[in-house]
Formats: sequence, structure tokens, C-alpha cells
Amino acid sequence: MSEPEKSENIPDESAGKGKEIPNGGNPAKTKEDFDLAAVYVSDAQYNRNIYFDTSPQAVRLYLLYNHWLSKVLLYFFILLDLSLAIFEEPAVFSLPIWATMLVELLCLLAFTIRLVHYAKVIPRDKFWKDPKNICIIVTLMLTLVDMIIYGALKATNCYGVRWSRVLRPLLLINVTEGRQLRRAFRSIRNALPQIFYVFLLFMFSVLIFSLMALKLLGKRGLKTIDGAPYFTNYLEIVFDLYVLVTTANSPDVMMPAYNASFVFAIFFIVYILINTYIFMSVFLAVVYNNYKKYLKEEVRQLVRAKRHKMARAFAVLQEQREEGGELVVTQANWNQVVRLVRPDISNAHRELLWSVSDDKNQGSIGKVAFVQLADLLNIEVITLKSRPHPLHSLCPAFYLSAPSRLLCRIVQHRAFVIVYDLIILVNAVFIGLDEENPMIANSEWVFLALYLLEILLKLYVFEPRAFFSRHSFWNCLSTSQIISTRFDTIIVISALIATIVNSAMKSSGGYTSRQILDIVFILRVLRLIRVVDSIQRFRAIINTLIRIGPMILTFGQLIIVVYYVFAMLGMELFKGKVKFFEDPNDPAKAYCGNPLLKDTAFAQLNYCKNNFNNVVSSFILLLELTVVNQWHVLSSGFATVTHISARIFFVLFHILVVIVIINIFVAFVLEAFFVEYSVDKSDLQTSLERKIEELELAVEQEKMEDNLVNAMETIDNDLGTGQSPTANKPSLMFKIASKRYRTVDALLQRMFEADLDPEDFAENDDQNGNFANPTFSSV
Amino acid sequence: MSEPEKSENIPDESAGKGKEIPNGGNPAKTKEDFDLAAVYVSDAQYNRNIYFDTSPQAVRLYLLYNHWLSKVLLYFFILLDLSLAIFEEPAVFSLPIWATMLVELLCLLAFTIRLVHYAKVIPRDKFWKDPKNICIIVTLMLTLVDMIIYGALKATNCYGVRWSRVLRPLLLINVTEGRQLRRAFRSIRNALPQIFYVFLLFMFSVLIFSLMALKLLGKRGLKTIDGAPYFTNYLEIVFDLYVLVTTANSPDVMMPAYNASFVFAIFFIVYILINTYIFMSVFLAVVYNNYKKYLKEEVRQLVRAKRHKMARAFAVLQEQREEGGELVVTQANWNQVVRLVRPDISNAHRELLWSVSDDKNQGSIGKVAFVQLADLLNIEVITLKSRPHPLHSLCPAFYLSAPSRLLCRIVQHRAFVIVYDLIILVNAVFIGLDEENPMIANSEWVFLALYLLEILLKLYVFEPRAFFSRHSFWNCLSTSQIISTRFDTIIVISALIATIVNSAMKSSGGYTSRQILDIVFILRVLRLIRVVDSIQRFRAIINTLIRIGPMILTFGQLIIVVYYVFAMLGMELFKGKVKFFEDPNDPAKAYCGNPLLKDTAFAQLNYCKNNFNNVVSSFILLLELTVVNQWHVLSSGFATVTHISARIFFVLFHILVVIVIINIFVAFVLEAFFVEYSVDKSDLQTSLERKIEELELAVEQEKMEDNLVNAMETIDNDLGTGQSPTANKPSLMFKIASKRYRTVDALLQRMFEADLDPEDFAENDDQNGNFANPTFSSV
Repeated sequence: MSEPEKSENIPDESAGKGKEIPNGGNPAKTKEDFDLAAVYVSDAQYNRNIYFDTSPQAVRLYLLYNHWLSKVLLYFFILLDLSLAIFEEPAVFSLPIWATMLVELLCLLAFTIRLVHYAKVIPRDKFWKDPKNICIIVTLMLTLVDMIIYGALKATNCYGVRWSRVLRPLLLINVTEGRQLRRAFRSIRNALPQIFYVFLLFMFSVLIFSLMALKLLGKRGLKTIDGAPYFTNYLEIVFDLYVLVTTANSPDVMMPAYNASFVFAIFFIVYILINTYIFMSVFLAVVYNNYKKYLKEEVRQLVRAKRHKMARAFAVLQEQREEGGELVVTQANWNQVVRLVRPDISNAHRELLWSVSDDKNQGSIGKVAFVQLADLLNIEVITLKSRPHPLHSLCPAFYLSAPSRLLCRIVQHRAFVIVYDLIILVNAVFIGLDEENPMIANSEWVFLALYLLEILLKLYVFEPRAFFSRHSFWNCLSTSQIISTRFDTIIVISALIATIVNSAMKSSGGYTSRQILDIVFILRVLRLIRVVDSIQRFRAIINTLIRIGPMILTFGQLIIVVYYVFAMLGMELFKGKVKFFEDPNDPAKAYCGNPLLKDTAFAQLNYCKNNFNNVVSSFILLLELTVVNQWHVLSSGFATVTHISARIFFVLFHILVVIVIINIFVAFVLEAFFVEYSVDKSDLQTSLERKIEELELAVEQEKMEDNLVNAMETIDNDLGTGQSPTANKPSLMFKIASKRYRTVDALLQRMFEADLDPEDFAENDDQNGNFANPTFSSV
Repeated sequence: MSEPEKSENIPDESAGKGKEIPNGGNPAKTKEDFDLAAVYVSDAQYNRNIYFDTSPQAVRLYLLYNHWLSKVLLYFFILLDLSLAIFEEPAVFSLPIWATMLVELLCLLAFTIRLVHYAKVIPRDKFWKDPKNICIIVTLMLTLVDMIIYGALKATNCYGVRWSRVLRPLLLINVTEGRQLRRAFRSIRNALPQIFYVFLLFMFSVLIFSLMALKLLGKRGLKTIDGAPYFTNYLEIVFDLYVLVTTANSPDVMMPAYNASFVFAIFFIVYILINTYIFMSVFLAVVYNNYKKYLKEEVRQLVRAKRHKMARAFAVLQEQREEGGELVVTQANWNQVVRLVRPDISNAHRELLWSVSDDKNQGSIGKVAFVQLADLLNIEVITLKSRPHPLHSLCPAFYLSAPSRLLCRIVQHRAFVIVYDLIILVNAVFIGLDEENPMIANSEWVFLALYLLEILLKLYVFEPRAFFSRHSFWNCLSTSQIISTRFDTIIVISALIATIVNSAMKSSGGYTSRQILDIVFILRVLRLIRVVDSIQRFRAIINTLIRIGPMILTFGQLIIVVYYVFAMLGMELFKGKVKFFEDPNDPAKAYCGNPLLKDTAFAQLNYCKNNFNNVVSSFILLLELTVVNQWHVLSSGFATVTHISARIFFVLFHILVVIVIINIFVAFVLEAFFVEYSVDKSDLQTSLERKIEELELAVEQEKMEDNLVNAMETIDNDLGTGQSPTANKPSLMFKIASKRYRTVDALLQRMFEADLDPEDFAENDDQNGNFANPTFSSV
């Protein structure tokens, strides 16, 4: 099948229907067999590693379990459960207790159903062995118990604490199939012992320095800026020096000593060098090193699990063509399975995938080739149909006339992009100027008109379906084009609508809606982004940043879990202690409604709104603590209104979030960049590309990436105007989706795949059962 | 030579003297040949890559050039030159202009002599091709010109600026053979383009967000905490948001908007996520990646240069044993050279090295084996002589008596260490308590007595020469022992002396010297460090930290260069603008002697001593800016007393020091940790170890490191008491020096050595001349 003609001689449809053709004594595969194989392949493709029952009923239930709708529902209920914090006391929007309780019961019911569903899918003993499930059951029970107690207490007007709210994020981790999130938690847990030892050493260093500071500075009768004695209490010194590690009280903590003599500055310099710079870097190094180590192990397991699933699919489909021959999968069976797994891909695309697998053109493939299928399915291949522009079909005489062709050439020219970039820059200056000026206000209409003209011109030149279709456009044009089309089109049209609405309201009632104006301004400013993306240099950086995107979502979840727990704790500990008064004339505003705060830095800096009075302000406060600066003022504020030991809450938060989680985040960004630099080409990807090239149906990916502008113009010609000299190419083209949208995870998997023996199908891993990282499945 | 007996049969001395033995027609090597070869080997050993003339005279000059005394003198003059800033206006200790000028002229003369010396050593054309030399000459000339102009201006009472002071650090970089420092500067320079692109993207993001902030928040009439309009001036917003990236003004900059509505917090959250977290991590990733890339290249070049030098040494010494045979170096010649290179190593040690090189025992070695010599010489092998304890020789009856032996066993027991660790912890608590209490004050004598007892006991048990000798003790005992002996002995004895002096002064005059008390306290606290090192878990971390040590010196120099330049600039720009008043009652103290600072945060926070009025306070101020927190207050303070554009100075400093240099520092720490984790055993090291084992003279290094305490006891027995059952071992033992003190640089070199072909002697690199990284030799 090395020549394209041959592949056309075998009609794909007949090959697909050929499942009933008897093969040398092999029993014909039943529909159940295909279903099972399809489930295995799909599991391998999406890296699911659930060890389900193979009975047809369980397979059907498993399919339902993995259905996107059930997953969306699950996420909806988790979100609902978590967002209850907004309506429960202390609430942003208060709802009666019975209402929130009812919704929570509903959520618990949904989780129970999901768990029962899962129990039906996997064998009984596997279910009970998985700590994840035990964790869910315990969480659900505890929540129920807490709700009953709380309800009873409230009914009798007693004081009750809804302590089980802290457990809610556990459901986000364990109920969902959030592999990435669990993996992140596992890497944290695995890194903890090592971090702990460094932390002990670091704390030892802080304690030693504190002792030195007490001895050196405590007896000198120095005063802080508030007139308080300086460095006389050992615990205070420890806290102050811990804060100095976070740099939040630098240089204030040093000033009294430095004012006394510059020799004391040496003490602080040594302290900062050792604790702030060296130890903090060591924390990053330890976190990063552990992260890398466990990541490698986990990705290796993932790859093995995938192989194992594919080997099982092969076992279902395998047959012997001749006596004593190799076990193979025929093209007919293969087609049947691929059609079940991905009903959306075209016959031609499937044909292409087969020809990559069966590169010797034998009509059947062995185990090694079959196992690759999961990866092949993950490579997004785009089928491009070169269609003429609709105007070309409607009135070719006009569309092909000299002025029209000149216009097409102008729009496709590089200068066109540059001119529009310049227009945007001029626009940026205008945005910066005062919009009250009528000249400036009107100029916005001119810019909007120019942007609309650009969109219309592009629609005229390029094929509209290509312009709006899901894949082709994103990949055929350079990234600058993407932004200038998709993103920009949306922004320009929204800006147009918002500007019209705004002007209409202004002219009718004379009243300008602040909200609409805000949106207009933001849309205008966002438009400027496209300038950057049109510069080649920045694109490489932006590509990596985009690839980091999915990871940031994982870390978003991680942070939300930790924030949620601390917010719940914080709200129980500190709610109502610090109040914010909207009315600027309220005398209580000066001390946040708490006389204890009078004349403290907390009140003087007007931090009253940084409180734990509802879940939203708690989250914002925790974010401020994550950013670290002034966290000592915040923690001292809350310690003032409650007890000095309240600082423990803030220090714990700092250790967990800043030292551990933020370092893992940094480690991830570093790793993403290094993977980016080290993995350039993957074997599998290029074997598919080679095949595409062989089949002469390819648009050369490499050429496109290397020399974007030139390549683009040829492709655009092929696609849009259809007038290029290469019009004798077949009307169907395959192209591998842009590398831009490949995730770091996929890159990592491919990196480790190269290490593994292709003959290793991980079949002996079966005993371990679920593959779900048996030793550390739950948090 | 696989058996030790054999090696004893060939007396080393006769082999050494055998240089005149005629070898199959090869001309006898002259003294000049050996000198030249020795210089090559020594260059390779210390990684010097100067392409010197091979004439005997030049070689002699070159030896003088590399002499430690000339290097110490050079560093002395550089230090003198740099420290002139302390005495020049604005001075810490004012000296007349003629005095500083005279000293500076002396320094310039010293540098010129050094340069002329260098020019004599290397060929004329190489000298002029090296940009480093051009840089030195230009710097010297400019300094001279500046001095003349300044002197003339001062003589005529005109205002003059000593602008050439900024150039002084260039001498530190270029005049010294500070390979590491130049390498650090080169990695920075090489990383700059990439950092620059990320920086542009980052600045674009800041500008876009500032524009959005202006549009969103500028028109709402919000006020900052000072009552100033909030977010109305675009440039102010850019500065505020840039400061927010450094987190220094978080959450203050957000509070007015957040107080107005919590929706605005979203803007700041998105900003912090993108700019503070993602972009700052990307900076680290880019710096780290470039650092790694160039480091690899540089270390590879270093290794090649070393090979090249060794190949040249081989070319000098080579001879043909038989007609048409391989070119070899005979043991006699080899011995001669090694004796010239390292006159300090013993005959036995040299014998050992030879037997490692000539592992087939042929009496001569080929090129590949010869090239290894540089690395072999770098491996510190310690010759241990098992000597009995002097008391053992003096009165064996007493020393070998049962109580004495019991005492030895007790002191060598693990529990002894634990007991003393506990004593130290109790001591720590006592230090923390109030020393005015007479009980506590007297307890210090008890502790000192206990520590002295420990030292005496150890002296009794271990051989005193081993206790005080340079190497053996550091390496034979575990690290906890090192600290508990060397470091602790010094500290205990100093503490004893200081305490006695202190008590003497107290009892005589009733007056307690604060300085001596401070020293006593610091010494007491430092003693606590030894507890940590006795815990195995912490030792691995401490080992890496110790290994980072030399690197921190490099970065210290790097930082000093940058600080010096900025301090010189800052002193010219801001000297005398902000004054510090010692007298607390001076009314000018409240506004730092500058009415413009009245009611600014700078004056309110009492930052008056943070000024550019002399070089010491400038350095401390720059350090505070490096720590980042409150840098906006400092920069705004100096902008207030001069001009708003003064902020540029501070922003530039932030970009250069925090974004570039601190990230390189972090990259270095990370790399050091990863190298530590990845390089466990080096081939060369283990080949030597294998040989030592073979020769049955070895103390097993591995066993020692794995099972320190047990191994230690056996060794101690062998060493000290000499009574162990293994006393039939030869009285001479070799041991490889502890891995603890190997530098990261050495580890890196060994890593890359493994990549290089052992047959590749880099001989064709000769044309490139100096090997001194031709493309980027100067800053």
C-alpha cells in the first residue's frame, strides 16, 4: 500500500463490512468482542486505567460511566457542592439552611450514584482495594453525619459548626477521574519527606539566628518604629525572621539595628543570604527534583497501562491466518474497531492510519503495530478538502477578473498584516488618550470600520468554511492569522455591538452605562494582543505558554482545593472579627469595626476588606497571602483580634502554599520549557508524517513551520482561490494538526515511550489490578 | 604490578633517578623538556588554558606568572583598588585626594606590570587577538585620563566627576585568572537575547494591563490611602503594576479598587497570575536553560583544553621503545614530571598513581593513559600512616590497662556523641534564658568544662597528629566528628578565652565589654550547629550546601561587580540628598534632612539611613533593593528628592539583578542539586579506588560512607590505639579524600568527560590559539 492508487483499489466500505468473512478456522468476532476491543482502545487513547469487568453488561455500563454527559453532570454536582459555601453562613448571598442542606443532600446522592455505578463496573474485590473509593465513602458518611448533627443543633438553636465542609474538596480529588489533579497531589505527598528534612534544617537555621539576634540585639534597648522594644522576645524574633525569609518585612525589620550601627547589617545580610536565597532555592531544587522523579515514574506507568490495554484489545481481536503463523488483526476487524472508537473520522483518514500501521501492506497487523493504534488515534490529522471560494463558483468571471485577483494578492501579502499591525498600534495610542474628547471618541468608529473591512476582505479572499471551521483554519494559517481571525473577529464584532449599544444609550438617555463602557474598553485593549503574535520571535514563547495552559488548570484545581480548606477553617476561626464598612464616614471604618485594631498597621493600611467574612473575601485574602507581601501585617491583624496563636494558621498556609505548591508550579513551568527544548520530533509523529508524504497527499508540515509566510501563501492559494499551479494535486489533503496545541503531558508520554521496549506490553502488570498507581491512589 | 610486593621490589628512588638511562635510540630528555611537560600537566590539572610560548625563558616566566605569590599580590591590588571607594568622596573614612590618587596609581602600575608579564609569556599575535587584554589596556588608559582630568579640575577648584570608578570592577573580571567569574558573565551575556525577548513580551503584557487599568479604574474617582487620585496617570500605573510583579506593593495597590468592588480583584488576580507567577517562572526557565546550555559548552571546551595540554605534554615526553612501536612515556620520565608537578606527594602515592595508569604493568604508558594523569593528580589521595598513640609508646602499661581501654571504647561509642548532642541542646536552652541570672551565667562555666573534657578525651583516644593534621582527620571521621573536633575545638577554646576575658574585666572594673560579650554569645550559639550535622538525614543536604560554597564565592564576586557599578552611579546621582541624623531629637531626622521627604512613606518608615552617602550604605541599600520588598518606597523616596526619572535607575537595577543574576544563582543551585543526584560515581575515581583495593592498602571508602559509625570505629582503632585485630595490615594506607569537598565544577567536568571520546585529544583545536573561549573572552 505504498502507492496511493493501490489504496483506492480496495474500497474502504467493503473492507469495513467484511467482518463476517471466515478466516482460516478462526471464530468470527461477535459484536460484544468489537465493543470490548473498542473500549480497550478508547481507554488506551484517553489514558483511562480502570480495570473494568469484561462481561457485556459491565462493558455497557462502563461506556455509560465514561460518557461525556455523566462526566459533565458529575462536575456540575461537584461545582454545586463546592459553591454552597457562597450561600451558607457566613454567606455572600444568604439562603435558609434547609435550602443549602437540600442541595447538599442532592449532591451527596449524585456522588453515591456515581460510586455505585463505578462499583458495578469493576470487580467487587478491586473496588474495595482502592483507597480512593474508601475515601469517598468515608467522606460521604462523615458529611451526612455532620449534616444531621448540625441540623439537630440548629433546630434546638444551639451553636453548631459545619466541620465537614473542609472535606468537600476531597470529592473533587477523588470522585472525578481527575488524573492530573491526583497526580499533582501524589507528587506533593511523595516530595513531602524530603521537603520536610530541608524544612527542619531551615527551621534550625532560623532558630539559631533568632537566638543570635536575641543575644546580639535584645539587650541594647533599641526601639522599633512604633516605639516597641526591639528583638527582646524570642518567639517574636523567630516570627520576624521567618517573615524576613519571605522578604515581606525587609528592610523594616533591619532598620532599628542598622540605625544603631551598620555592623548589625552584616547579621541580616548573612541571614538573608542563607535563609532567603540558599534555602529557598534548595526548596525549589528538592521539590523540582522529586517532582521530576515521580512524574517520570507516573508517566512510565501510564504508558505501560496504555500498552496493557492495547494488548488486551489485541487479545480480543487476534486470529491466526495460517497454522502456526503469527497472531494478527485483520484490516476488516481493525476497521470495525476504529469505527466504533472514533465514528467521526473519515474513511480516507482511517485508510491512512491503516496504511501507517500495515506498512508492509499485508492486510493484517501484528501486536506491535496494533499497540500503536492508540497513539495514532491521538494524532490529530486534518482532512483538507480544497474547495473553490463560493464566489468563484457563483460568478467566476468577476472573481477571477484582474482587480479581484490583485485584491486577493494584496490581502495575502505580508504588508497587509504589517499595515494592520500599525493601525492597531495607532489605535493603542488613541485608547490611551482621553475618551471624553469627541475627536478621540469618534476615531473609535474609524478603527472599528477598518477592522471590519479587514474581516470582510479576508472572507472575500479565503474560503468562508475554512475561515470558520474547527480545525483547518487554525492550522493552515500562521498563529498571527489565527488571532487576527478567530479571536479578532469575535472581539471586533463584540466591540462593534458594545459600541453601538453604548452610543444608542448615550444618545437616547444621555446616560452611559459604566459596565458596557468597561467591556468596550477591555475589548479594545485585548485587540492589541494580536500585534505580539505576529512577531516570529514571540511566537515560540507564546506557544510554550499556550501549552502550559492545561497544566495551569490542574494547578488551579489544586490551589482551589487548598484554598477551600483554608477558607473554611479561616471562616470558622475569624468570621466577623474584622468588618468592612462601605460608608466612608462611619467612625468604625478606621479600626475595621474592632477596637482592638485601633492604630495597628492592619487598620492604618485600610485592610478591613481583607477578612474571612465570606468565602469570596476569604479566597481573595488567601491569594494575597500567596503573593506573600504584607502577609505579616494580615496575620498580625488577625492575631490581634483573636489570639497570638492565630499566626500558626498563616504560617502553615505559607509553608504549604508558597514553599510547596508554588514551587511545584514553578517546577512544572521549568519542566514544560525543558521538555519543549528537548523533545523536538517524536518517532510516531514522524512515521505518520512520512506516510502522508509517501501517499503524496500531504501538505508538508515541516516546511510550513519553518517558513511560515511563504508556505502559507501557497496553501492559501490551494485552499482559497484554487488557482495555484499545483491544482493538479488530489482534492483531498491530510495535515497533522499544529504542534502548538500538543500538551506537555503528551510530550512527556512520548518521551518515555521512546525508553520503553516496544515488545513490552506490560502484560504481567495484570496482577496489580487497577493500574491506578496502587500504592498512592488517594490523597 | 598487581601485587603490592612487586611494587616494593622496584625501589621508587632508583626509578626516579633513571632518567638518563638510554632508551632504544631516543634522545634523552633535557631538564627543559621536563619543565615544559610539567607546566603542561600542571596547566591541565588546574584547568589553565593559556597558550604560552614554549621557549625555556617563557616557560620560566610562565611559572612565575602562575606562582601563588604573584596571584595573591594581584588580588591584593585589586582589592585595594576597589576599596579606594571607602576613602574617596563621598567617603566612609575621608582621605585627601592625593593619597587615594597615589594608591590608585600604584594599583594601575601593578596591573600594567601583570599585563606586561602576560605579554612576555604568550606569543605577540595571540596577545593582541585576545579582547580581554584590549579591555584591560583601555580600562587602564581611561582611568589614567580620568585621574588627570579630575586632578586638574580639583586643582583649579572645579567640579569633577570620577567617572572611571565605574570601570574598576572590569579589572576584577579581566585581570585575574577568574575563570569562573568570566564564565558567569559569559553565561549572562549569552542568555541576554533570549531573556530580552521574554522581557519584551512581559513588558507588553504589563503595558496592556496598565492600559486596561487606566480605562477600568481611572475614571471612577477612587482615592488611594493618601487621598491621591487612583490609577489616573498611565506612567504611574505602569510603575505600580511593575512593582506589583515584584509583589512589593501587594495588596496595597489593589485595596482601593477592591474596596470599591470585589469584581476588580479579578483584574489583579489575573495580572498576578500572568505576570508575577507565569512570566517570572518563564524568566527562570529561560535563564536556567541558557545557563545549562552554555555551561555544557564551556565545560566541554575546558575538558578539551585539558586533553590538549596533556597531549602536548605527552608529545614532549614520548619515545619509541622499539622500532615501529607505539609512542610511550616511560615510568622514569613520568616520575620525573610528576615530581616536578607535585613535589609534595609521597613516593608511595606516586607509585600508586603509576600503577593505576600502567594497569598492564608494562613499565610505560600510552597517550590515553597519560592523558588521565591530570585527573589522577586531582583526586586527593590521603596517605595514612597507622601510628600508635604517643601515650601508647610512652607508657604502654597504663595506656593499655583495662580502665584506659574501657575509656577508649566509651569515647568511640555512638552514645558518647549522643550524650554530647543532648548537652548542647540543654546548653541551647540555657543560652536562650536570661544571662543576668547568676545561676545561668555560672552554668556557662559548667558547659565550657564539659566541652573541654570532650576535647581532652578525644585527644586521649585519637592520635593527636591525626587530630590536627590537614587531611586525614577531616576524612577519616564522619562529618559530625569533623565539626565536633576542628570547628568545635576552635569555638570552644575561643569561647573559653572570651569568657575568661569577660569575667576578668567584669570582676576587675565591673564594666562588661559589649563587643566581647557579643563574641561570646555568637560563639556559644555557633556551637549548636554541630547537633544538626550529627544527624545522617541532614548530612546529604549539608554536603550539597558545602559543595555550593565555591560557587557562592563566584556569585559573590559577580554581585560585587554589579553592586560596585551601581553604587558608583548611585553615589554620583544621589549623594547627600538623604541624610541620617544620629541625634534622635534633631527635627530634621523626621524628614531625613530633606524637606521634600516630609510625610512621604520613605521618611515615615525611617529609611533615612538607606542612602547613597558612602559606599557601605550604598551596598546595603542595593542589597535591600535585591531583596525587593519596599524597593518602590526607596525608589520613590529618591525620585522625590531628585526627579521622577530616578526610578529608571532602580528599575534597571531590579531587571539586572533580580531578574537576571538572582535567577542565575537559583539556576546554579538547582543544577548543583541535580548534578549531585545524577553523578554518583565517576569512572576515574572508581578505577583508582579499584586499584587501591587491589593493592590491599585501601580503607574501603564506600563502606565508610555507607556505614560510617562502624567503619569509623575500625579505622579509629587502626589509627589511634593500634590494637585492632587487623594490625597485620601494612602500616601505610591510602584513602580517597571525602567526596564532600568535591566541587560542582569538578563533578560537571567529569560528567562531560564521559561523553568525550577518550582518543580525542583536541589536537586540531590548536589553530584556535588560546583556547580561552575565543568568541567571548571579555565581558
